[in-house]
Amino acid sequence: MSIIIDSMTKDLSPWIQAFKHAIPEEKIVQWDDQPDLKQVQTAIVWNHRSELFDCLPNLKMVCSLGAGVDHIFRDESLPDEVLVTRIISEELSAPMSNFCIGAILYYQRQFDKYLVDKEGKIWDQQFNPEREKHVGIMGMGQLGSDLATKLVGLGFTVSGLSRSRKVIKGVQSFIEEEMANFLADIDYLVVLLPATSENKGILNNQLFDMIKPGAYLINVARGHHQVNQDIVQALDSGKLGGAFLDVFPKEPLPVDDPLWVHPKVFITPHIAVVTKLEAAVPQIVENHRRMLKGEDLCGVANKLRGY
Amino acid sequence: MSIIIDSMTKDLSPWIQAFKHAIPEEKIVQWDDQPDLKQVQTAIVWNHRSELFDCLPNLKMVCSLGAGVDHIFRDESLPDEVLVTRIISEELSAPMSNFCIGAILYYQRQFDKYLVDKEGKIWDQQFNPEREKHVGIMGMGQLGSDLATKLVGLGFTVSGLSRSRKVIKGVQSFIEEEMANFLADIDYLVVLLPATSENKGILNNQLFDMIKPGAYLINVARGHHQVNQDIVQALDSGKLGGAFLDVFPKEPLPVDDPLWVHPKVFITPHIAVVTKLEAAVPQIVENHRRMLKGEDLCGVANKLRGY
Repeated sequence: MSIIIDSMTKDLSPWIQAFKHAIPEEKIVQWDDQPDLKQVQTAIVWNHRSELFDCLPNLKMVCSLGAGVDHIFRDESLPDEVLVTRIISEELSAPMSNFCIGAILYYQRQFDKYLVDKEGKIWDQQFNPEREKHVGIMGMGQLGSDLATKLVGLGFTVSGLSRSRKVIKGVQSFIEEEMANFLADIDYLVVLLPATSENKGILNNQLFDMIKPGAYLINVARGHHQVNQDIVQALDSGKLGGAFLDVFPKEPLPVDDPLWVHPKVFITPHIAVVTKLEAAVPQIVENHRRMLKGEDLCGVANKLRGY
Repeated sequence: MSIIIDSMTKDLSPWIQAFKHAIPEEKIVQWDDQPDLKQVQTAIVWNHRSELFDCLPNLKMVCSLGAGVDHIFRDESLPDEVLVTRIISEELSAPMSNFCIGAILYYQRQFDKYLVDKEGKIWDQQFNPEREKHVGIMGMGQLGSDLATKLVGLGFTVSGLSRSRKVIKGVQSFIEEEMANFLADIDYLVVLLPATSENKGILNNQLFDMIKPGAYLINVARGHHQVNQDIVQALDSGKLGGAFLDVFPKEPLPVDDPLWVHPKVFITPHIAVVTKLEAAVPQIVENHRRMLKGEDLCGVANKLRGY
């Protein structure tokens, strides 16, 4: 039997080397090797080619190379009985939390203002150097909970929105029906939602109408959630004070997208978390071995739920 | 008896109101009121006028409106027997730590690079989005210790330099004689030293020769520590990767200072911590009442030590 690795966007060579080293008893193959696809039980993927699953008659398990599995579930050729796993790791949540904290503090401590002041050699001490400190987190899974706990430790007021109510020390929990109350009082909205069909385009005018005027949007989840033109409109009308965006509906962000030149937008190229070999390879190898033995897997994603 | 408030740089009106409210039994006076200066036992100051102390024959105590007392000790007319106090408060350490964490994450998560990339509409995923994570803190008093503990919680490697060895969980402690070892391995140097005569101009070429090449300098203590021309030289030669400076030898930073236009310098106008009325007023009032009763004071600074 064998394991196939496939991605149309990642450089796979370091990954193949790492898997060959970690699981020497298995054959690790790639599409271009023209391998015997009937032998493949496990597919390790990140934005795989559309024909892949149809060519794997004995596929048992698909492993994401990251925390997201939307790129797998959106492929309708995925058979229902195939198990899908994602990476769950402190090695993902720590950089994600730090990235979000960096983005929040960038606004909370007015770094955006002082960068502009420097251009004009302006020494302005009259301005309040600390903005408000209430952060709302949409999506309170492993990543959202880790961020919430760390923000509480830094003295922030933290609210979290999730499907079911969560108990995290110092964090006010809201459920989806309480969205309006959740949004009304927050100064920063951090989006850490999985990409499901229900929340496609959730960052739109309707949501921005409910948010506290001048709040900052920080999206580190998926571009799937964003309606870019509504974000631009909300920034221009002052409904949003700024937007720190790591993800976009189309990536790379097209050069003619107005977000590139908007002064209130901070753009990073989907790098809030880059899955590290050292975190992902052992988890995937462990799951492959468990699958072969018929044992329970770690980080199994649910197709109906979407994550 | 009465209390005088004096500052040549702060707007005192909200302070005077707050003190009048907090200690109604005392007369709160200002220089321009031409008060009876013989009545003054307590002076509350921030960059006071040079003639002040010479005109207060019955002065018992000088209270700083912030954490620093260098502005008081540098006045040679301060009588030796007068007590000097400073503000010590969680309300100072929390914003200071957050400011430093924001500055560290700005560099660690390459926000500086992505701001430049945005100008050119560059979507660069090939770059490692996480710089190294070893922070060195010079000055491990209340502020340095608070920052160190919080950075450990965010997954940073933390070293601290202080006069005497400190025991803080997860933090490697260095004493002054070990400066070279302390500097050799750090990626970010955060300066939280008090302004004493020994460390005047400590941020100079000699120090930059010892620091790990490409390290980032973050000074939130006093401009007193900085040799600006050495910082520019170290940035240009690559000894420093960047400098995040909140303080300067001369403030406001003169418009012709080369730091204003240096692309590797982030400038903020001495706002990392702005002492809040609510934190400072009760401490000073409490000390004044204790002084009158002959009790021990809080936050007494030592003239010989300099802080």
